[in-house]
Amino acid sequence: PAAAMAGFSYVTYLAFCPLGRPKPDSKVNLRISKENPKVVDSFDIEDISEKVCFCRCWRSENWPYCDGAHGKHNKETGDNVGPVVIKVNK
Amino acid sequence: PAAAMAGFSYVTYLAFCPLGRPKPDSKVNLRISKENPKVVDSFDIEDISEKVCFCRCWRSENWPYCDGAHGKHNKETGDNVGPVVIKVNK
Ligand code: FES
Ligand code: FES
Repeated sequence: PAAAMAGFSYVTYLAFCPLGRPKPDSKVNLRISKENPKVVDSFDIEDISEKVCFCRCWRSENWPYCDGAHGKHNKETGDNVGPVVIKVNK
Repeated sequence: PAAAMAGFSYVTYLAFCPLGRPKPDSKVNLRISKENPKVVDSFDIEDISEKVCFCRCWRSENWPYCDGAHGKHNKETGDNVGPVVIKVNK
């Protein structure tokens, strides 16, 4: 009966827990413009007049710019993401 | 016994399945430069001579540039991520 119970538990686990199955990928963006099928942000290079940092963690409150939220995300999840930076030399 | 089994299964499920618990956040980057504590890519604006697309899905094989891998990621996960684009007017 213990074995049966263990087996049953394992089946339950597999049935309900996606992490128990091979999982190729999961969502990156949990919140930003979810009504938009693909969030692309486009800029003319001429309009960039000072250093800009673009968020790549999808956690910024100032999207599409980095506001440092990657720090909290990295700390909480053990992740290692950060922005892409465009520097303007004056 | 059925109730006990169900209860036991639920406990097993909670114990082993992170998705069964409140989960504030999960990793965005599964693969890129994992030895680097924070992946930041920096560019001088002067060095951008044609349109560039920077990957924000962390799935590109041509990191830090977008190679279209966001499409497969979005399809597989129901996500909606895409690149940031810097356009150069000539
Ligand atoms: S806040 Fe997202 S990369 Fe900095
Ligand atoms: S491949 Fe990552 S945003 Fe396009």
